[in-house]
Amino acid sequence: MKLPKPIINLIESFERLPGIGPKTAQRLTFHLLHFPEDELARFAKALVGLKRGTSLCSICKNVTDSEICDTCDDYSRDKNIIAVVAGPLDAYALEKAGYKGVYHVLHGLINPLNNVGPEDIFISKLLKRVEESSSPLELILATDTGMEGEATAMYISKQILALNYPENKINITRIARGLPAGGSIEYADDITLARALEGRRSL
Amino acid sequence: MKLPKPIINLIESFERLPGIGPKTAQRLTFHLLHFPEDELARFAKALVGLKRGTSLCSICKNVTDSEICDTCDDYSRDKNIIAVVAGPLDAYALEKAGYKGVYHVLHGLINPLNNVGPEDIFISKLLKRVEESSSPLELILATDTGMEGEATAMYISKQILALNYPENKINITRIARGLPAGGSIEYADDITLARALEGRRSL
Repeated sequence: MKLPKPIINLIESFERLPGIGPKTAQRLTFHLLHFPEDELARFAKALVGLKRGTSLCSICKNVTDSEICDTCDDYSRDKNIIAVVAGPLDAYALEKAGYKGVYHVLHGLINPLNNVGPEDIFISKLLKRVEESSSPLELILATDTGMEGEATAMYISKQILALNYPENKINITRIARGLPAGGSIEYADDITLARALEGRRSL
Repeated sequence: MKLPKPIINLIESFERLPGIGPKTAQRLTFHLLHFPEDELARFAKALVGLKRGTSLCSICKNVTDSEICDTCDDYSRDKNIIAVVAGPLDAYALEKAGYKGVYHVLHGLINPLNNVGPEDIFISKLLKRVEESSSPLELILATDTGMEGEATAMYISKQILALNYPENKINITRIARGLPAGGSIEYADDITLARALEGRRSL
């Protein structure tokens, strides 16, 4: 029994997505066989429209459907606080946590094992943005706390410190590392606990 | 921060798929932003082509890209053994297990809670197929061993028995229920063990 070609085509397309293996790709494809044709057409249109309908904000490089994204265009937000994030989903997560500054989206993290160097992500664009700012800035390095996120944060901070800006021009901070909400000291790993101790604050 | 409309559209399309929640839909969509446009176009084409390029085999109702599927069209297969399955993926699984007969695909299981009655799946088509067969048949009821699969198997077997065919015309069997390969008696559930005892065979 061969699977019909149109089914194989769609299974292959699904398999290219992250976290979707052959079994899930099959299941999704056979499930879609029960969808009405106009729903499939709508799905297909959304796929084609994804890149055609979006671009990167010319200021912060977040994904947007206009020249400047609505965050950079929002006069109520504090333009002097810039959260540096790896991707749009990270910005979205900070947003839901109540963050009111603006963003800089790197679109990746430095990862030598995967051949991603500093020049492959929007770091030089960030340095230029810092340079061109006329008011004092706070740069919150809000990358993941894994190896690549830490390396990227360290690289950016070194690059900026090397430029020897006057002390009141820029303040570089890193998001706090410690126990997550609801965390248990007993089960926390060594690195997390060490960082939680290191970052302790007076009450 | 609002997500751009093209991104929301695609997230919504992904969310309609089984087992894909809002978080996964977001992740897939933002991942696809890094795909080249022609790959997105290929994915879209596969979606649109899925139903246009396939139909149901006029004999066994399996999904195919021609009038009769390649299993029904294969002279080397035993046409007198029909495995009755709920969907194409079940046929595919039996195929990989080395089954050499043909199939009848019901496209569903009787499920009163979801308003799926016997008339909503291809049962009458199966009864007709049995009736029209000139040679003696074995019907292997190979539906799942959960509630709906058992109910569907029982319904089909009752319907056929009620037709009072001569004894040599049809032999209805049910796939064996017992411990799966590598199963442990200690951890098996009661129903599985009861069925394994019930179905014991002489060595």
